[in-house]
Amino acid sequence: MDLNPKPWTQTTVVGKAVPRIDGAERLSGVTRYALDVSLPDMLFAATLRCPHAHARVVKVDLSKAREMPGVRAILSDADKEAQIPWYFNGYGPNARALSRLFDPHCRYQGEEIAVVAAETQLQAWDAVRAIQVEYQQLPFVTSLEDAQKPGAPPVQDGGNLASPASVYTRGDIAKGFAEAEAVVEETYRTSCELHTSQEVHGCVAHWDGDLLTLWDSDQSPFDIQRGVAELLRMPLSKVRVNARYGAGFGSKLDTSKYMVAAALIARKTRRPVKYFLTREEVYLCVGNRPAHLMKLKAGAKKDGTLTAFELTAAGEVGAYPGDDNVGQMVQELYTCPNVKITEDQYFINAGQNRAFRAPGFPQCAWALEQTMDALAEKLGLDPVDFRLKNVAMVCQTEENRPYTSNGLPQCLSEGAKAFGWKEARAGARGEAAIVRGVGVASGMWGYLAPPHATVIVKYFDDGSANLNMGSTDIGTGHCTVMAQIVAEELGVPLGKIEVESADTQTTQFADGASGSRSVMITGPAVRSACLDVKAKLLAAAAAEFQVFDGDLKFENGEITGPPGVPRTPARRLRFVQEQGVVVGVGVRAPHPANKSVRPFCTHFAEVEVNRRTGEVRLVRMLAAHDSGRVMNLATYSNQVYGGITMGIGFALTEQRILDANTGKMLNANFHDYKIPTALDVPAELTVLPIDPHDTEVNSTGTKGIGEPALVPAAAAIANAFYHATGVRATVSPITRASVINLLHQGRKQG
Amino acid sequence: MDLNPKPWTQTTVVGKAVPRIDGAERLSGVTRYALDVSLPDMLFAATLRCPHAHARVVKVDLSKAREMPGVRAILSDADKEAQIPWYFNGYGPNARALSRLFDPHCRYQGEEIAVVAAETQLQAWDAVRAIQVEYQQLPFVTSLEDAQKPGAPPVQDGGNLASPASVYTRGDIAKGFAEAEAVVEETYRTSCELHTSQEVHGCVAHWDGDLLTLWDSDQSPFDIQRGVAELLRMPLSKVRVNARYGAGFGSKLDTSKYMVAAALIARKTRRPVKYFLTREEVYLCVGNRPAHLMKLKAGAKKDGTLTAFELTAAGEVGAYPGDDNVGQMVQELYTCPNVKITEDQYFINAGQNRAFRAPGFPQCAWALEQTMDALAEKLGLDPVDFRLKNVAMVCQTEENRPYTSNGLPQCLSEGAKAFGWKEARAGARGEAAIVRGVGVASGMWGYLAPPHATVIVKYFDDGSANLNMGSTDIGTGHCTVMAQIVAEELGVPLGKIEVESADTQTTQFADGASGSRSVMITGPAVRSACLDVKAKLLAAAAAEFQVFDGDLKFENGEITGPPGVPRTPARRLRFVQEQGVVVGVGVRAPHPANKSVRPFCTHFAEVEVNRRTGEVRLVRMLAAHDSGRVMNLATYSNQVYGGITMGIGFALTEQRILDANTGKMLNANFHDYKIPTALDVPAELTVLPIDPHDTEVNSTGTKGIGEPALVPAAAAIANAFYHATGVRATVSPITRASVINLLHQGRKQG
Repeated sequence: MDLNPKPWTQTTVVGKAVPRIDGAERLSGVTRYALDVSLPDMLFAATLRCPHAHARVVKVDLSKAREMPGVRAILSDADKEAQIPWYFNGYGPNARALSRLFDPHCRYQGEEIAVVAAETQLQAWDAVRAIQVEYQQLPFVTSLEDAQKPGAPPVQDGGNLASPASVYTRGDIAKGFAEAEAVVEETYRTSCELHTSQEVHGCVAHWDGDLLTLWDSDQSPFDIQRGVAELLRMPLSKVRVNARYGAGFGSKLDTSKYMVAAALIARKTRRPVKYFLTREEVYLCVGNRPAHLMKLKAGAKKDGTLTAFELTAAGEVGAYPGDDNVGQMVQELYTCPNVKITEDQYFINAGQNRAFRAPGFPQCAWALEQTMDALAEKLGLDPVDFRLKNVAMVCQTEENRPYTSNGLPQCLSEGAKAFGWKEARAGARGEAAIVRGVGVASGMWGYLAPPHATVIVKYFDDGSANLNMGSTDIGTGHCTVMAQIVAEELGVPLGKIEVESADTQTTQFADGASGSRSVMITGPAVRSACLDVKAKLLAAAAAEFQVFDGDLKFENGEITGPPGVPRTPARRLRFVQEQGVVVGVGVRAPHPANKSVRPFCTHFAEVEVNRRTGEVRLVRMLAAHDSGRVMNLATYSNQVYGGITMGIGFALTEQRILDANTGKMLNANFHDYKIPTALDVPAELTVLPIDPHDTEVNSTGTKGIGEPALVPAAAAIANAFYHATGVRATVSPITRASVINLLHQGRKQG
Repeated sequence: MDLNPKPWTQTTVVGKAVPRIDGAERLSGVTRYALDVSLPDMLFAATLRCPHAHARVVKVDLSKAREMPGVRAILSDADKEAQIPWYFNGYGPNARALSRLFDPHCRYQGEEIAVVAAETQLQAWDAVRAIQVEYQQLPFVTSLEDAQKPGAPPVQDGGNLASPASVYTRGDIAKGFAEAEAVVEETYRTSCELHTSQEVHGCVAHWDGDLLTLWDSDQSPFDIQRGVAELLRMPLSKVRVNARYGAGFGSKLDTSKYMVAAALIARKTRRPVKYFLTREEVYLCVGNRPAHLMKLKAGAKKDGTLTAFELTAAGEVGAYPGDDNVGQMVQELYTCPNVKITEDQYFINAGQNRAFRAPGFPQCAWALEQTMDALAEKLGLDPVDFRLKNVAMVCQTEENRPYTSNGLPQCLSEGAKAFGWKEARAGARGEAAIVRGVGVASGMWGYLAPPHATVIVKYFDDGSANLNMGSTDIGTGHCTVMAQIVAEELGVPLGKIEVESADTQTTQFADGASGSRSVMITGPAVRSACLDVKAKLLAAAAAEFQVFDGDLKFENGEITGPPGVPRTPARRLRFVQEQGVVVGVGVRAPHPANKSVRPFCTHFAEVEVNRRTGEVRLVRMLAAHDSGRVMNLATYSNQVYGGITMGIGFALTEQRILDANTGKMLNANFHDYKIPTALDVPAELTVLPIDPHDTEVNSTGTKGIGEPALVPAAAAIANAFYHATGVRATVSPITRASVINLLHQGRKQG
């Protein structure tokens, strides 16, 4: 039996919008997230963090803090076991230690100076306040633009250039622009955004002898196992990370200092330690989407054929290296023979950037899709038609290989039809106090070559099943979708499937929940494990009934076959009854080497702009996505709703504000850092799945929806804003103040 | 690569007496046994039990108990969800429900009437005492002999015959005795023994939504998962049993009422519930080795050739059916053409029997090996020589198939030599106050055809490994031995191996820790999983170095090969680095169908009998065992020490005493129920492993040591007692009072 066959042609459970298998538990509060883990004798940890944007710690006096009630241990740079180098480029031979666990050179507001463990959380916080520190404050830099200035205060010893310019070229850029009959050029700026996960970052650390267990709120337990093991110089087998109810939008992929500190202080006190950050600490210290400056120039012929793209981009990584790149969509989304991209990145005295849902892509879409809009206008073409003309059907960065599927043309055309694009676009721009406009933007997501995933399915002789997989459900419904595959293949009702996930000790390896690839990586492995179970059942039935196993079928938990073979529930097979359980092992096969894999999408937005108050209100949005097969329309749609909501935040409200005078973050709280609420999301939000029946990508036909759902949303809103007002908003977010300013200037912002 | 090859011919780690990998944790108290599991918000349960040997519950008044402080729920037969039929013959179509969870017909002292859950353990016990019950007391029967009498009070509706006589015959028993030139006949009686596990029985029950988790002190999590699922009508996948630090000598194999009650009351209160029995409850309610009456007649020719065995045995199962059979050694141990065995079992009003280390075998050895001793004496033969002459080299109950190995001749001859048997035996029986004697007895263990076992080994790219197996280490060192196999095959140091075991959700299936088969079942599966890892590594290395994988070797974590292939640590292979972890899956292959499998043994004992005080003191013992390969002499020897210690208890001190007047147990505590202490065990205790290099039984060459270690010990002591005193002690235990009585009568007891 082929354990990695072509995708299903007909399905019963897969594709249904079944409710989440853990929905009741999650809603009722029964689910034990990492934050809910409570162990007997547990201590609580809290951190003393540098209050300055840039300072050197001259002296730390712990004596008063040690005498505070309930304090059991304090860990600082004075402890030998805590003098651990801290890396920012992985842990291999090329890793660079730019800091250490408690580095006396604090490069941003929030760097760790000491950790206290006490009997209660309040005692821990009180003790932190009792630590006396003498700082030598240093000059600082708080913006990308300032960081690039000659003589700017250096964040790192080598200066503020975090990574030298990377240059990509294709064709001849000069020739491209020479051939162009229309050229547009614009500078775009996106703001630094914070992930703002619902569950704050943190873990509970516990030692059983030489085995360290971390119950951690993260997305990638196997990566964190590796990071912690390397930093503590432990064997991987002795570090157990459980992230069963994972979380995060990218900021929980990395090994963080609190994990290592929790392990150390638990070992020191010989007690479990709960160590969760406060919301303010999360805003300051565990990642963000870096601000970007992007200068994009594009040229096209009169018929709409693109001739050249030139992008010059600078990213603001914070105090330590990050890796958001913004060029990929410019390289790949549209057919363009001549492309040049130059990217570099700069340090500032602020928290370090970390991967944030589709790193680099929403920024790129902000520039690219507004540029496409401007170019279409200049050419007198409809923005949808202009894009349709230029959709690339081969992957221009991967040897022009065809895609396993590319539904972008359908996203554009079917999306436009469903949205009523032509009609909405036709209305003339008014001069009323409130004006309306519609915009469109496309996007894609850059597929990351995934590692191996192994899945175990146990089929019990009562017809129930246990699914064991390394991947974590970060709130996407991943466990439900994976259970649907088991239900589909083995005929087990969803209510009889129990999922064990995301524990480095008890589950097999799977890559972290990142790159929109959980379903596409683990799904085929789950199917493969089910098929392995089925193959074993059929072989056993064939032996029992003395027939050829090719003549037998396993459907809905029953074996059927030619005349003479009684219809037999699998659990009645002698083999199953003897073994008690049938163990199937599945691995994911690589996708075909001669094809490229990308999900694609187009978003349509309609906005109302109040020209007096500056308010931008989303009237409706439509999101057309080609992410391959829709496994569950409910979880799929939720991903799109979430992506669009984040896109609204990107477009209209979210930005980290650093005070240039003090270097401190001014809005490190829910009140001042504005994420969209239910009232900011349009009631009319349409999800239009495009499934071009990708039969090649893998055995489930799936490509991933998590990240593309966000990519073009903000750009579509910005284009609708332009359509409504005639003014281009190049700087994100488009706040009320900026709208008033833009309209007052009667021209583009910035 | 053959994943189930012949056993090793050379080993590096296997066979070494390495210390237990979890020794430090167990000794330091870090290990969390089920009894140590503590969950937030946990309630504590306690049981109201019938104080009478036989009674009908007329009325239960819970009103006062409900008002006791801290009480959160009471479960009794009045609760619909608790009206669960209770089975005693498994749960299949032939199961008979003879009782229910809280049966108003209480058939022994200790039957469950109600369970209370309260905020503290003391509150739960107090509330139990506040329950008011009206009982109608019924006539009862407290001994096997009384139970058989006509007109005895019936324990069950059908009378006191628990199972009709099973009859086994081979050859012609009349002809056999006709041919005999010497015949002996004797009636033996063994007492009811209690398991007396160190950890009392109990569990912690917790519900996560519809998933029930039991942290249970047991030996067979997969069996208990099945029992609880059947009784609560739940899918197997929704019942998770964790018995990582298992325990028990057979009394923790079965689904017990406390497990189901804990699950129900946790569901009712929506809180975790800790439910452990008291020592007294353990003595009363969760199993025992049943008393047996055995009449054994044996005949032989003058040259020592056995001609006939006739055994008539009756067992005392307690109030519900049990299944100790005592005939197998009579059938198999010695070559004998004519055998007849008749066995039946009787109910009495006392706790039910359960499997107890080598069920039936020590009882049988008590009768058989004393009979062999008596027959040798009658024939004028040395007891060792007499046995040697009759050792059966084929399995007489399995079509006379040869054994994969039979080291019994070596156990007898090499054991006799090492013990100094001839010299010790030669000394004349004295008439001093203190007399000495030596005795010998042989034994075997009946191999139970094992089910399938599946094991996962994860090999991490830092050269550490995770072993995932369903079997539980009940204190035998099983995890250590299994880790040695991983170390042997993969070159991973023991300190870098983490073992995950005995969790029905996170580990694969393995049969319970019973039948002395943990090592022989799981061991080959572990080896097979390691070989699967190795095969994957070699295939990857072959691809990387462009050579044939048959030319490569994997040793001590390194790939080596022909010239041109650099010596490469496995973790440096591209394949391993890409995958992060290599997953190997192993299954156990069945043993060869044309062979039978048994472990064999011979024990030698020397005793001193104080003819004035009746004290019997063990001077020394030697245990020669053929259990196949010795995987770890330290854990192997511990099994033998433990078996002999239990044998001393069987022979000299242990017996349940029921008061014939009240039907109550008089010694349900550590003080009155005498298990041997360190002072009762001889300082000179010699373990003599006989390894006849069994290359056929499985890929490790192991046969099992746990149960044979106990089987002949008591019989060897009884034979030594006879040698010392000239009086045969047919009734176990040989207490001081019985010795005085026997010596006073100058003849056999009973």
